[in-house]
Amino acid sequence: MTQAAGIVSVLTDFGIRDPFVGVMKAVMLSIDRDLRLVDLAHGARAQDLVEGEFFLSTSHRFFPTGTVHLVVVDPGVGTERKAIVAQTSAGWFVAPDNGVLECILGDARVRAVDVARHALTPLSRTFHGRDVFAPVAARLASGQLCFDDVGPEHGPVRLESSSIDSAGDEISGAVVSVDHFGNLITNIPGVEAARLAEPIVRLGGREVALRSTYGNVQSGTLVAVVNAYETVEVAVRNGSAAAVLSLAHGAPVAVRSGA
Amino acid sequence: MTQAAGIVSVLTDFGIRDPFVGVMKAVMLSIDRDLRLVDLAHGARAQDLVEGEFFLSTSHRFFPTGTVHLVVVDPGVGTERKAIVAQTSAGWFVAPDNGVLECILGDARVRAVDVARHALTPLSRTFHGRDVFAPVAARLASGQLCFDDVGPEHGPVRLESSSIDSAGDEISGAVVSVDHFGNLITNIPGVEAARLAEPIVRLGGREVALRSTYGNVQSGTLVAVVNAYETVEVAVRNGSAAAVLSLAHGAPVAVRSGA
Amino acid sequence: MTQAAGIVSVLTDFGIRDPFVGVMKAVMLSIDRDLRLVDLAHGARAQDLVEGEFFLSTSHRFFPTGTVHLVVVDPGVGTERKAIVAQTSAGWFVAPDNGVLECILGDARVRAVDVARHALTPLSRTFHGRDVFAPVAARLASGQLCFDDVGPEHGPVRLESSSIDSAGDEISGAVVSVDHFGNLITNIPGVEAARLAEPIVRLGGREVALRSTYGNVQSGTLVAVVNAYETVEVAVRNGSAAAVLSLAHGAPVAVRSGA
Repeated sequence: MTQAAGIVSVLTDFGIRDPFVGVMKAVMLSIDRDLRLVDLAHGARAQDLVEGEFFLSTSHRFFPTGTVHLVVVDPGVGTERKAIVAQTSAGWFVAPDNGVLECILGDARVRAVDVARHALTPLSRTFHGRDVFAPVAARLASGQLCFDDVGPEHGPVRLESSSIDSAGDEISGAVVSVDHFGNLITNIPGVEAARLAEPIVRLGGREVALRSTYGNVQSGTLVAVVNAYETVEVAVRNGSAAAVLSLAHGAPVAVRSGA
Repeated sequence: MTQAAGIVSVLTDFGIRDPFVGVMKAVMLSIDRDLRLVDLAHGARAQDLVEGEFFLSTSHRFFPTGTVHLVVVDPGVGTERKAIVAQTSAGWFVAPDNGVLECILGDARVRAVDVARHALTPLSRTFHGRDVFAPVAARLASGQLCFDDVGPEHGPVRLESSSIDSAGDEISGAVVSVDHFGNLITNIPGVEAARLAEPIVRLGGREVALRSTYGNVQSGTLVAVVNAYETVEVAVRNGSAAAVLSLAHGAPVAVRSGA
Repeated sequence: MTQAAGIVSVLTDFGIRDPFVGVMKAVMLSIDRDLRLVDLAHGARAQDLVEGEFFLSTSHRFFPTGTVHLVVVDPGVGTERKAIVAQTSAGWFVAPDNGVLECILGDARVRAVDVARHALTPLSRTFHGRDVFAPVAARLASGQLCFDDVGPEHGPVRLESSSIDSAGDEISGAVVSVDHFGNLITNIPGVEAARLAEPIVRLGGREVALRSTYGNVQSGTLVAVVNAYETVEVAVRNGSAAAVLSLAHGAPVAVRSGA
């Protein structure tokens, strides 16, 4: 069995202007003052499960084994959706049962949180990040709660929309994130694109050849690269591709061979 | 006597683009490398004492007993306003003497900071967060400074504008915060609104029935709920009420019975 | 020899909406779970070496001796630019070799990072913050890597554009940062301006007298002060000078005597 490492990574769509993330940390430190709390990101688009799942899927493997990943992108708060904990060989993932953990569900055991036992009281209707997810994550990370005591086994909701489609010589996907620099980040794996001869990326009515690095083009020029997420990305060197192409989340993208 | 827990919560209106919060943390770690420093929020509206006080009033009770709360919303920096420390049974609160600590002053003992003894030298005229508040908070949190040595007892400035008014069957208040999602957050306590039969919230020329949760309405619809701050909030499910109603901080709000 | 303090300060232009900073921290905690990781700032303008260098130059001295400063403002990622470590009596500075460390290079010994030895594998072409800079910083901070083993001695790239010019009775400089409040922050040292009799600051076609503090003018009025960076700054009391004057990074500024 993996041992809890005393580390909680925190991924939300709360932004950082409000005290919501800070209060979740307060709750966790009240349970164990010695926990290491690491902000993974709080800027996922509000209630965008696809972007939240993408951030998690491309980031979680860099954390130490035994980390607890606390993920709160929760458009269904106040409905009957369950809170779940997924256990893998890498650690634990605490989140609403809405598909945001899709990337790790294939290899995971999943339990629904017994809210009556584990939540803060009184339980609010609008902030389960504070009242349910944070206390469960903190108790798992500190070793005060073991996975088998979380609640009953549960078949989790799956997320369908983030898949890509390979038909013939073309791979179809979508923009799943637009980063701080305006880079358009797709869900098409670089390794898939690299199987095509002289790959060409098409989006927003433009075609852009896939290069090995930003440095291959002049400043201000469109370029497609395999990014640090290991997916295809369209950028403008020293500029914003989102602004130049007027594209945002969900824009369709295709990669074909230019040979 | 409460023992210092070695934890400092940090609440400012500095935003996070600049190194101001980072430098305050550097000063605190230079005093005690083992302090736990927790960002409560840095996105309070610039120099908005009402929003800063609201963030503190609704959040501080989630921290461990013995926490030092460092609050820097300081429109009067460079004037003669005092720096103060307030002590309650929960811990300590370090802030400018401008009312931003209103929520805890009722039960607190208050001392003015002896700046000549406790500030960094040279003392700047524009950044007392770094030069006065951070070193005092760090020394209190680490046990190097006890409350009685902070400076002389002091009658603090009080904040008047955040109060609500109950006249007859109507409760009047205001929007005190607009969160990351565009939810309009008022200072009207949910427990007060719940005393009315079938409560109706009026703001921006619209009337919205108070519901128990977002999940009671369709996506895109206005809804009023009691939020995680335990106050009345007007939201658009999966949208932005601030955009839909074109309202911001200070907008008047009333709750009446619809029965 | 300075001892590593187990502290890493992190300065980037990544913003905080994406998981890039969080993943760098994950890499560092995987190397040493006990490191103290402190966000200095992540809001430097994208790929703006002048603002990044300004943030570092005005902030690093507040950290404890033995801190490792990790600085990732890296417009040349994917080109042949080197990664470097600079050692001073205060600690270590890990960054791309592009001049962003200008402020400390005068007194530093500099080595180029032996990337083949020290980077994560596989090494991406787009995110050396994660793959090169974070692991080197974490190993230095934890004492697992000593400076002499970083790589060969190296003559670093210098940054020229951030200098000021004193001709006759006038000091010329530029706006190098615009903070969260809209204050226009220049690179003209307050101590230089103070040598002039009755100094007057000129920018954007306006002239503003240098005062000792914001408190000297009415709300809504332009004022020039020496700020917490110890440089000349033009502000609007309780407002935004950037908005009022329609000025941004790079705007020319001069200070002359008004006597």
